[in-house]
Amino acid sequence: MDNYRAPVEDMQFVIDEVLNLENRLGALPVYEDKGVGSDLTLAVLDEAAKLANDVIAPTRRIGDLEPARCENNRVLCSPGHEEALRQLGESGWTGIAASEDFGGQGLPEVYGTATSEMWNGANMAFALAPFLSSGAALAITAHGTQEQKALYATKINSGEWSGTMNLTESGAGSDLGPLKTRAVPEGDHYRIYGQKIYITWGDHEATDNIVHLVLARLPDAPEGSKGISLFIVPKYLVNEDGSLGARNDVYPVSVEHKLGIHASPTCVMAYGDTEGAIGYLVGRENEGLRCMFTMMNEARLKVGLQGLGAAEGAFQLAKAYARERVQGGVAIIEHPDVKRMLLTMRSGCEAMRALAYSEAVTMDLAHSGPESEKALAQARIDLMIPVIKGWLTTFGEEITSLGVQVHGGMGYVEETGAAQYFRDVRITSIYEGTNGIQAADLVNRKLGRDGGATMELVQTEIAETVADLMASDNDVLKGMGQALKVALAAQVRATEWLLQQLRSNKPAALGGSFEYMMMTGYLFGGWQLVRGALVAQRAIAGGSDREFYRHKLATAEFYCEQILPRCLAAEQSVLSSAGTLMDYPVDWI
Amino acid sequence: MDNYRAPVEDMQFVIDEVLNLENRLGALPVYEDKGVGSDLTLAVLDEAAKLANDVIAPTRRIGDLEPARCENNRVLCSPGHEEALRQLGESGWTGIAASEDFGGQGLPEVYGTATSEMWNGANMAFALAPFLSSGAALAITAHGTQEQKALYATKINSGEWSGTMNLTESGAGSDLGPLKTRAVPEGDHYRIYGQKIYITWGDHEATDNIVHLVLARLPDAPEGSKGISLFIVPKYLVNEDGSLGARNDVYPVSVEHKLGIHASPTCVMAYGDTEGAIGYLVGRENEGLRCMFTMMNEARLKVGLQGLGAAEGAFQLAKAYARERVQGGVAIIEHPDVKRMLLTMRSGCEAMRALAYSEAVTMDLAHSGPESEKALAQARIDLMIPVIKGWLTTFGEEITSLGVQVHGGMGYVEETGAAQYFRDVRITSIYEGTNGIQAADLVNRKLGRDGGATMELVQTEIAETVADLMASDNDVLKGMGQALKVALAAQVRATEWLLQQLRSNKPAALGGSFEYMMMTGYLFGGWQLVRGALVAQRAIAGGSDREFYRHKLATAEFYCEQILPRCLAAEQSVLSSAGTLMDYPVDWI
Repeated sequence: MDNYRAPVEDMQFVIDEVLNLENRLGALPVYEDKGVGSDLTLAVLDEAAKLANDVIAPTRRIGDLEPARCENNRVLCSPGHEEALRQLGESGWTGIAASEDFGGQGLPEVYGTATSEMWNGANMAFALAPFLSSGAALAITAHGTQEQKALYATKINSGEWSGTMNLTESGAGSDLGPLKTRAVPEGDHYRIYGQKIYITWGDHEATDNIVHLVLARLPDAPEGSKGISLFIVPKYLVNEDGSLGARNDVYPVSVEHKLGIHASPTCVMAYGDTEGAIGYLVGRENEGLRCMFTMMNEARLKVGLQGLGAAEGAFQLAKAYARERVQGGVAIIEHPDVKRMLLTMRSGCEAMRALAYSEAVTMDLAHSGPESEKALAQARIDLMIPVIKGWLTTFGEEITSLGVQVHGGMGYVEETGAAQYFRDVRITSIYEGTNGIQAADLVNRKLGRDGGATMELVQTEIAETVADLMASDNDVLKGMGQALKVALAAQVRATEWLLQQLRSNKPAALGGSFEYMMMTGYLFGGWQLVRGALVAQRAIAGGSDREFYRHKLATAEFYCEQILPRCLAAEQSVLSSAGTLMDYPVDWI
Repeated sequence: MDNYRAPVEDMQFVIDEVLNLENRLGALPVYEDKGVGSDLTLAVLDEAAKLANDVIAPTRRIGDLEPARCENNRVLCSPGHEEALRQLGESGWTGIAASEDFGGQGLPEVYGTATSEMWNGANMAFALAPFLSSGAALAITAHGTQEQKALYATKINSGEWSGTMNLTESGAGSDLGPLKTRAVPEGDHYRIYGQKIYITWGDHEATDNIVHLVLARLPDAPEGSKGISLFIVPKYLVNEDGSLGARNDVYPVSVEHKLGIHASPTCVMAYGDTEGAIGYLVGRENEGLRCMFTMMNEARLKVGLQGLGAAEGAFQLAKAYARERVQGGVAIIEHPDVKRMLLTMRSGCEAMRALAYSEAVTMDLAHSGPESEKALAQARIDLMIPVIKGWLTTFGEEITSLGVQVHGGMGYVEETGAAQYFRDVRITSIYEGTNGIQAADLVNRKLGRDGGATMELVQTEIAETVADLMASDNDVLKGMGQALKVALAAQVRATEWLLQQLRSNKPAALGGSFEYMMMTGYLFGGWQLVRGALVAQRAIAGGSDREFYRHKLATAEFYCEQILPRCLAAEQSVLSSAGTLMDYPVDWI
């Protein structure tokens, strides 16, 4: 089932032609010696694609059939996964977008975004390992001491070590307030005691050491979420000379039996069952949640990419099957309803990619852009992240389900691999904040905190794209402009309504938030896809006969006709959220 | 995970109060000595609920963990399943709606429908066994000789034996034309040679014998689907005196490894590998497909009920979890987005139930109603079946996915059982004709054959319900009337457009068929749900203080506000199906 081939052509088109990376980021001080531009883009994408296609993708099916397991407080990984992980680390991909000062490659976030899509398309369970590692390194880089950065962040970014995130406990999930893990001061360090659950890649032997980031509560800390601190707890303690020392008192005790991502060991981790696990405070006491929040945007963007990666993989598999499978005398790809499913998959993947990559550039601008633009970029990425996380994963689930459907009965039989995409991706709308939490974040925090001002800026940009399209003498572009205009108007009405509810009836605003997040995703994704169509049309008008440009136009047109109208139904749901949804007594459910 | 409790109260409400079974069927000659009415309804439902809740539901999780397997040409069933199957057969449930002349109980189809929902809610993999058995008995009853009916149909209906359907081969699925299994005449019987795949419950030892119905090709039969005949191939041959004789040459050779329904042995069956399997022709030569088609409506209705049963089970599990799980200081059922998910599940289940049961009554009228009404009832059920099969299964998939989502991280861990509903139900939109095929059937055959006349009759009935609602002085009912009116208008426009396309651009009609089927389902289901609300409102106006009636009203209101608007998006997709969906070159996908 190593069908996956990284969609390098579309990736490069989005990065270089639509987002115009060279112009927008190339001149920034942080990138001035990097040669950001299409040569670099192609070099990065081609090299990553080799790893994804030839090394990672062949592990996907094996990992599904032979899940990671836990024996005697040790995780035994699925075959081939540790080798592939070592290769990824040694090639420097873990820290591709991390600072060169701490072991990274210092490249723009959008390259990390594209490669992350590839790892996820090739094998989502595997891709979680570098995902968690780079998140841990980022948190340490943002909040650690100089020594912590130089040691832990550098070792992770350079691929020598890996990292994990330890938040959830059995009584503390979406709400971390009640967490009970304790940290007791002892000289220059702490002793950590407690049990964490859902720890992704909590143990393995692909790297010499594992840096666990752990949320715990100090003695006499305030109750609830204000009394949580963040600690580094390495699997092996590190000696003064940098060599590895004693095994720390942190062990996996079991691995969950999950619907998918079987190769990703989801561990229950025991801290301090014997002498107490040695940990080091990161950032200030009782500011652990704030420290985690700083890496949340990156983490949620990457979960969105999991939705996209799985959807792209499922699309490629379904397309190949539909070309091959004959029913009624023709390949089923010729059947109108199968064609509809495949085009939904294709246009969905391209829209998701265009949106995610576009906002990865925003993330770069927020971090490293001109000072005058940083605040605006940060507000925009804060707004975009719940949309990207929520929409890409929910739509990704639909697309992988279509992948099963295209296969017919063969899709339900595990050996084709279509069902694996469907199972694997199902976690993405749950972890890193459920999609219900993303929706609440979008409406309650991101709309609420500036009264919709940032959203209005994006809506204005979309209106400008509508105007560009409507001004064209090309009927196809005009049609897209009309469809985008209708969807935008619906989303604007829904936004205004939710802003009103936020003031007078917050539960109703939350009740409408999910459908609003989805319609916003369909709109934003469609907008970015249509921007690509404009670029393609200009190239064609300029004399290009590259067929790829015609694909882009047709795919965007399909999306405008068949997918964008979903905004209309969503609008009605949103505008009704103060009705029976509120009045219905909970006891009656 | 034996959480399931058959929703007897809503079932009885639909059957007796909304559908008014006693008045509509009680006086028919075929039922005149049955005492059809609320006492009988309650007796049937209560007795079936005991079996579903206490015997079948406890097998669900076991069957998932310990799949049926095949060893030495024999299926070894999941623990407990054969015992439960024997108990179901001995209690006479297999033939509940079958003729008393051939071992059945002769009760209305709607009782078989309700009990079938229960078996599926309790354990879908298990429920496939009686489903296939009653289908086989029905086919034999419709087309067999008097002797075949007296022997095979009677033994199956009475629960002593079971039945299977053998259609698919590796090269013949949705299109059965190319099938290769051969039948060679030999005296009063035939020798069957070939291999069949996807044979549900192809082997087990819960019953003394298994009656395989097999499609095969006679020597010199016409090519394609016109040269296919139907045969009875019993697992054990039957002696003159009715006792069981020699083992026939039909064996399971393997069992598929599937996404779900693990307890249902999906067999590859080998016919005639040694001396040839002895088979008996059912119906006329080369009319095998026609014989299968006569039971297709019943089979597809039952697959729809699988979608409903799984959705109801998933809803019950999610509701219980949401009441118990506390986050942010309150049970998550209080969170507006969780409430939205649960009400989507609840209202969806009730709408699906109302529609499926309503049309089970139509099926009864088509079979046993007054002669003057039969043709119309048959036309109506023919129209309804693809909607019920397609919509209930696709919506059922969404609802089971919401069930996972309500559980958060626990939903992705298999031990909660939420993921099993999600996996199990995923086959239902594929088998018994994929939902793409249902959609094509609805548009191309059911709309096409009478120019939409039958659809128009249903639309007219819906318009009458709209008028009833709008004439009410109750604002809630008026609001529902308005919502139903808008959805109906959209569906009418889509219908007219598809009828036009059928004449001029059939591929476009097929391209729009899936979204049309879905919007038709949302409309029809909403209509039946709202009819229930009208009944409830009348009861309340008449002085009833039964809280259940208030639930029904509120649930219908939620559906009208939050679910019915989906018709608007679907309409736009349908009306665009002659656009890029048609023009997009298949090579570009």
